[in-house]
Amino acid sequence: MNFTGAHIVSIDQFERPDVEAIFAVADRMQPYALRKRVTRVLEGAILGNMFFEASTRTRISFGSAFNLLGGEVRETAGFDNSALVKGESLQDTARVLSGFSDVICMRHPVAGSVADFALASRVPVVSGGDGANEHPTQALLDLYTIRKEMADRGRSITGLKIAMIGDLRHGRTVHSLGKLLCLYTDVEVVLISPEKLSLPEGIVELMRNSSIKVTHYDDLLEGIVDVDIVYSTRIQEERFPNKREADLYRGKFRLNQAIYTEFCQPNTVIMHPMPRDSRSDANELDCDLDNNPNLAIFRQADNGVLVRMALFAMVLDVVDSVDAHSHDVRWFNARQN
Amino acid sequence: MNFTGAHIVSIDQFERPDVEAIFAVADRMQPYALRKRVTRVLEGAILGNMFFEASTRTRISFGSAFNLLGGEVRETAGFDNSALVKGESLQDTARVLSGFSDVICMRHPVAGSVADFALASRVPVVSGGDGANEHPTQALLDLYTIRKEMADRGRSITGLKIAMIGDLRHGRTVHSLGKLLCLYTDVEVVLISPEKLSLPEGIVELMRNSSIKVTHYDDLLEGIVDVDIVYSTRIQEERFPNKREADLYRGKFRLNQAIYTEFCQPNTVIMHPMPRDSRSDANELDCDLDNNPNLAIFRQADNGVLVRMALFAMVLDVVDSVDAHSHDVRWFNARQN
Amino acid sequence: MNFTGAHIVSIDQFERPDVEAIFAVADRMQPYALRKRVTRVLEGAILGNMFFEASTRTRISFGSAFNLLGGEVRETAGFDNSALVKGESLQDTARVLSGFSDVICMRHPVAGSVADFALASRVPVVSGGDGANEHPTQALLDLYTIRKEMADRGRSITGLKIAMIGDLRHGRTVHSLGKLLCLYTDVEVVLISPEKLSLPEGIVELMRNSSIKVTHYDDLLEGIVDVDIVYSTRIQEERFPNKREADLYRGKFRLNQAIYTEFCQPNTVIMHPMPRDSRSDANELDCDLDNNPNLAIFRQADNGVLVRMALFAMVLDVVDSVDAHSHDVRWFNARQN
Repeated sequence: MNFTGAHIVSIDQFERPDVEAIFAVADRMQPYALRKRVTRVLEGAILGNMFFEASTRTRISFGSAFNLLGGEVRETAGFDNSALVKGESLQDTARVLSGFSDVICMRHPVAGSVADFALASRVPVVSGGDGANEHPTQALLDLYTIRKEMADRGRSITGLKIAMIGDLRHGRTVHSLGKLLCLYTDVEVVLISPEKLSLPEGIVELMRNSSIKVTHYDDLLEGIVDVDIVYSTRIQEERFPNKREADLYRGKFRLNQAIYTEFCQPNTVIMHPMPRDSRSDANELDCDLDNNPNLAIFRQADNGVLVRMALFAMVLDVVDSVDAHSHDVRWFNARQN
Repeated sequence: MNFTGAHIVSIDQFERPDVEAIFAVADRMQPYALRKRVTRVLEGAILGNMFFEASTRTRISFGSAFNLLGGEVRETAGFDNSALVKGESLQDTARVLSGFSDVICMRHPVAGSVADFALASRVPVVSGGDGANEHPTQALLDLYTIRKEMADRGRSITGLKIAMIGDLRHGRTVHSLGKLLCLYTDVEVVLISPEKLSLPEGIVELMRNSSIKVTHYDDLLEGIVDVDIVYSTRIQEERFPNKREADLYRGKFRLNQAIYTEFCQPNTVIMHPMPRDSRSDANELDCDLDNNPNLAIFRQADNGVLVRMALFAMVLDVVDSVDAHSHDVRWFNARQN
Repeated sequence: MNFTGAHIVSIDQFERPDVEAIFAVADRMQPYALRKRVTRVLEGAILGNMFFEASTRTRISFGSAFNLLGGEVRETAGFDNSALVKGESLQDTARVLSGFSDVICMRHPVAGSVADFALASRVPVVSGGDGANEHPTQALLDLYTIRKEMADRGRSITGLKIAMIGDLRHGRTVHSLGKLLCLYTDVEVVLISPEKLSLPEGIVELMRNSSIKVTHYDDLLEGIVDVDIVYSTRIQEERFPNKREADLYRGKFRLNQAIYTEFCQPNTVIMHPMPRDSRSDANELDCDLDNNPNLAIFRQADNGVLVRMALFAMVLDVVDSVDAHSHDVRWFNARQN
């Protein structure tokens, strides 16, 4: 696809070369994210960071990515009730807001709303998630993390065996990741969940049709043997009819260091879309894993900045001028110490 | 008036040469708003964008205008209940906040509060609206839009015939626009509203005293014949004692393409202060007008950025150095494609 | 202490040379805070301004301080309920958010939370206050103000006699200031409060042990005679079990111009951590003091920007490069007129 001026609203937009192009640019953003260099290529550009649903970490990740390219951020955080009361359509909101910025990132609680908004926007729109529907940058950063972690182990996505664990029914991140993996060959996916929280059949079919080998387990210990990556997810309490039903499943698939040592391969990568639920009755990924070098969850969050920088740079067509407008970092860099 | 260091809190501050000076500067801001050039003239300056009442679009319009001049924005969005609980006076708030920025934009729900705040501020204050009282930048952007749209039709504000439609009693934008029009000659204003929502008598008198010809209609179709501009407004539901009373009037003056074609002149400009209520029972400006090239409502919103850039540039006395600190745009510009 | 890369979470970290180093750097920030010069030394750096408790003035003071050094600010304002619901630990939040910025300022309602957060953060953390516990930059700006006001009167902190007035039990600013004063010699502290709101015994002991002379009064007029500084505080209504109990004490120690004239020395400095309660039943510092040149409360707020700039510059190790990356101010400067 041609990224210049494009909206990024769904992973269905991407062919494998697109995904690899994004990852190649993300790699080139590393020196800036690590504050080895500063670039000012987007000096004067404005991101409209429109979060009509609260999400501190994603909002700040997008905003920081834009700042790291030299641009400014105007933003809104949380649902603006007044606009709804006044009956404005999403299309009008898009037409007006797109007059204020060069690119928009939008999160909205209603599925499909970001794509609708993009249709009316006069500037490129990057989705920050639309309800239970899509969160394309999360899917991309997950796959980018897999690629990077595997590369560190002398491997690649081809030939990968990954276990997806927990609330596979509501977790949109595993849905999207499942779809993206279809772009690759020789992949094996192990689904570990209670039956009621299993991955939607449509996605399983998609994977099978593209030659991914899919197996099911409802026992954690059996499923995680032999996999390269365990991708753990949170019980999406907020998507259950009530807390009591969510509680039935909470903490059923806890991974801790003892289990890891006994059942996993020595280099198995541990991922999680975050936030992880650290309350004692949930504790999906035990904090005793925090010193395990294979725990990739914080590298995963860091990779989000790289992928978002890459998308902004591609959509605004500055990939090849990032370096030309760069200079040294002038301040103490905690990341290099 | 001398704009350097001045507070902008009321349209009563302006004589006609002042308004024209603002519009001339707004014209010069166009290349920056359209991202044909980037200016850094306000690099290092800080706008305190203090919105003590939620208003996403106005807040972001002000912030973007300041960013487009190269400055930074610190802001607050929504009423800070904690300050009120602690009993701080508006004067103290002004004295403290004005220590943090070079210029302040303030919106506040209480009429008169922005002018009070400005008295105590140590830096220039630009009003972002104070309750039902004033919203001077809206009035200026409305008149700037009228001037521009008329110029595109080989006309000027002098000789204009404009219809104001809807809730003329509560709509502060038509109050302010009515006052501003008094600065011009040979203007005719057609008021179209139910009697209970008619324009306050004081403003009608002001207009008549300055030789504006004012006529009343309660029928939309009769009133809009022969006018150059229809300025439609929203039923200000939030200013009615209850929703039921607001509902009495909702949707009484709907303009759609069929009515436009049958009753308006072929080039009649359609304006609206936005947001327009697009719910089916309101629908003041039908969405079937969206492809009508005379629908100026989105150009109107865009003009807000120009007018706000102009005011910041004038108040901070950088009008003549904007260009000297400019450079080319380095990224993909959606507006030129 | 070595400031480079350090967390600033408690005044207990500081020895007297540390405090004096901060004040010396704060003095050097004055030309930038007064907009006589602009520095871009932190161009490209990002402050994560994480206010998990609403506090407009402190949040904006930190953000402006960072902007004045040339850096960008990403921020959150108010408690993000969604993160708590999802059960994320403060440690995880710290690890993730510290991937997005070069330094973090954090305010949080829970005592001890900022220090916990700092332990897990990968970048330096500066406390913006943690509940009833610490607010170190407030303590530093208070002492910096005392030093500056005394210097203007040809005096220094050594030899100072200061009255602390009001709710000394709940006011964390007087607790911290009391501790900081222990770093100096020949200081006398006069405590003026109702018995139930008196300074915690632990802090009184600390002061006495470090040779500060401490005296108690429950009468304002007796206590303020002969002091160099009166430091008035607000009844911390929100820390009382109910409003009725807070009301018992409200307005008991009102200072106004008549009392000042009759009982204070002619040059007695008036301080207050702000906000001051200006409601008629409170009115701790009467507004008739606003024209008294010894009223230092707004200078005190201004000094907060200097102290915060100094801490950022020291923690990020740019103190000696601030001037090298500076240029003239290009816009109208209200502060010099």
